[in-house]
Amino acid sequence: MLHGKCLRFTGRGHLNILNFQTLIATKASRMRWAAGNGGLVDFGLRRSHGPGGYYASRAAIIGGFDATSNVRAGRDYGLPVSGTMAHSFIESYDDELSAFRDYAEAWPERCVLLVDTYDTIGSGVPNAITVAKEMEKRGHRLLGIRLDSGDLAWLARECRRILDNAGLDYVKIAASNQLDEYVIRSLLQQDAPIDLYGVGTSLVTGKPDAALDGVYKLVHLAGQPRIKLSETLTKITIPHKKQVYRMSDDNGLWIGADVVAMSSEDMIRTMHHPFDSSKSMSLEKCRKEPLLDLVMENGRRTHPPLQPADIAAFARDRLAQLPSEYRRFENPHIYKVGISDHLKRERDHLIELHRKDPP
Amino acid sequence: MLHGKCLRFTGRGHLNILNFQTLIATKASRMRWAAGNGGLVDFGLRRSHGPGGYYASRAAIIGGFDATSNVRAGRDYGLPVSGTMAHSFIESYDDELSAFRDYAEAWPERCVLLVDTYDTIGSGVPNAITVAKEMEKRGHRLLGIRLDSGDLAWLARECRRILDNAGLDYVKIAASNQLDEYVIRSLLQQDAPIDLYGVGTSLVTGKPDAALDGVYKLVHLAGQPRIKLSETLTKITIPHKKQVYRMSDDNGLWIGADVVAMSSEDMIRTMHHPFDSSKSMSLEKCRKEPLLDLVMENGRRTHPPLQPADIAAFARDRLAQLPSEYRRFENPHIYKVGISDHLKRERDHLIELHRKDPP
Repeated sequence: MLHGKCLRFTGRGHLNILNFQTLIATKASRMRWAAGNGGLVDFGLRRSHGPGGYYASRAAIIGGFDATSNVRAGRDYGLPVSGTMAHSFIESYDDELSAFRDYAEAWPERCVLLVDTYDTIGSGVPNAITVAKEMEKRGHRLLGIRLDSGDLAWLARECRRILDNAGLDYVKIAASNQLDEYVIRSLLQQDAPIDLYGVGTSLVTGKPDAALDGVYKLVHLAGQPRIKLSETLTKITIPHKKQVYRMSDDNGLWIGADVVAMSSEDMIRTMHHPFDSSKSMSLEKCRKEPLLDLVMENGRRTHPPLQPADIAAFARDRLAQLPSEYRRFENPHIYKVGISDHLKRERDHLIELHRKDPP
Repeated sequence: MLHGKCLRFTGRGHLNILNFQTLIATKASRMRWAAGNGGLVDFGLRRSHGPGGYYASRAAIIGGFDATSNVRAGRDYGLPVSGTMAHSFIESYDDELSAFRDYAEAWPERCVLLVDTYDTIGSGVPNAITVAKEMEKRGHRLLGIRLDSGDLAWLARECRRILDNAGLDYVKIAASNQLDEYVIRSLLQQDAPIDLYGVGTSLVTGKPDAALDGVYKLVHLAGQPRIKLSETLTKITIPHKKQVYRMSDDNGLWIGADVVAMSSEDMIRTMHHPFDSSKSMSLEKCRKEPLLDLVMENGRRTHPPLQPADIAAFARDRLAQLPSEYRRFENPHIYKVGISDHLKRERDHLIELHRKDPP
């Protein structure tokens, strides 16, 4: 009784953490994939789901972002922090130039000026150039300008040309405004000279998915396998303690298949489709790498926690082993996940047993 | 507590709170509209965005939900708390009947049994009936059963019939499994005898929108109006301190129009489309109700905070004044929001001034 209750609460709490941060890290990773070597900064706190933004910022770094504007998450998780000025800062002055000057004085090393409050080409960029020249005289360099509206591809090209003609080829161009991985890809395809992307809403909400549907199911208790049946075949759980193996070829490249097996198995020759018994695949020639690692036992961590930067590096290295046809946005290859021969027999046996004589 | 702390920002912090909770309360309100008098319970914590689920539960009650399974939010905000057992609880027993019996003993007054772990009609409902009869002997009543998979409409009808035939017409039927306002409406259209809906993911994530795009803009400072221009007309801010008036007819029914005016105006005769100067509307015959109220001054609340139940009652009463053509899901009437004659002249004047001579 009590045991069951505990399971329910721990299970749900972990789900919240795993589902949400996996969703955001995945979204961030798609944007990293689209942006190539471009800078990526998380601007999402104002659109995040309450304090969920705190964890979204951590997950963004894990997925490949360079920095976050969320200073609290930055402090607590040791994440690089970055941000630029708000329109309201500029509007609070009687003129744009005075606002730029004060900001440059306050942030001489990391000054990024927002140039679209009144007229990007007509006033924002000329005023930024004036301030950049004044900064040069004081031995500083304007870090960048930021575009936040209008046709970003066209404006970035125009601004680049104007800045270069003013001898300011070192000034970077940042862009924001409803960006996601598709817009970033489109900007790159148009050769927009954007050095840094500020991404908010679609990053921290995981748009358009908003949720990763991970569930918690009991599969093993007190030495016995457990199963949940269902009218819907795909909702029947797979019982037993398990290990997951990733298949790679002789060169160590992933072949696009993971097999879920009993934790006690060591000879896995065949992988079955979990729901379509007509589909199976031989694994004889594959290298098999176990993926599951024990991280907690009897309520205690078995390893010290990893820092977000370490997890980010791990994710980056692992993703480099994934063939690009699995990463493309349009009709990606489906990564196969199957079950071992032994596990399939165990599952089918338990289903039969429970259907004949429900527990 | 982390939640409160990470939100102590000014403009951006308020946006986070307003955007997210407005999104969820709106989503909850749509489900309330669809569910009629059916019970609605928030089951969303496992899919919410980190601790955002804490505020989602509050917003769900404001939008018309009856209870939440989030016990922490329930305690802190005084929300009704409700929940049912998990599949893992049942699976942790060797048989379903023993699990049901133990649960009924622990919750004699509020026992809802989850009947789909093995076979809803074959074992779940018969075992629930056995337990209900045992409860009757002890002077208790089984509150309900819950369906969480399969064809909910068909299963609900079957279960209702079986329960009624067993003399258990008082046992309620609860349903969950990827519900949203459209599925709830469809279940009602099929006359599914469901008394209570448990809603998770789409409620707490606001699917499919995931974010409400509210922004913070400076419009007035130190006695002066402020404006932000843009290449995009709809992104030009509307300057000045304002009041918003809702228009109603002689019977007090809303006519579907709000006008944004200068806070100093009292004679508002015409409303203009904010971006299309060819469109305007006479307001001569309308009753005008001011909507903005001062809630904070010099960093302090001007009223004591309202309880979620009070806000929910306010929202319910207000929505009753909104004609149903604005609430329907398919092609709803567009609620008009315009600006007053005076405000339009002020805005256009400032645009002209700033474009001629950028600040």
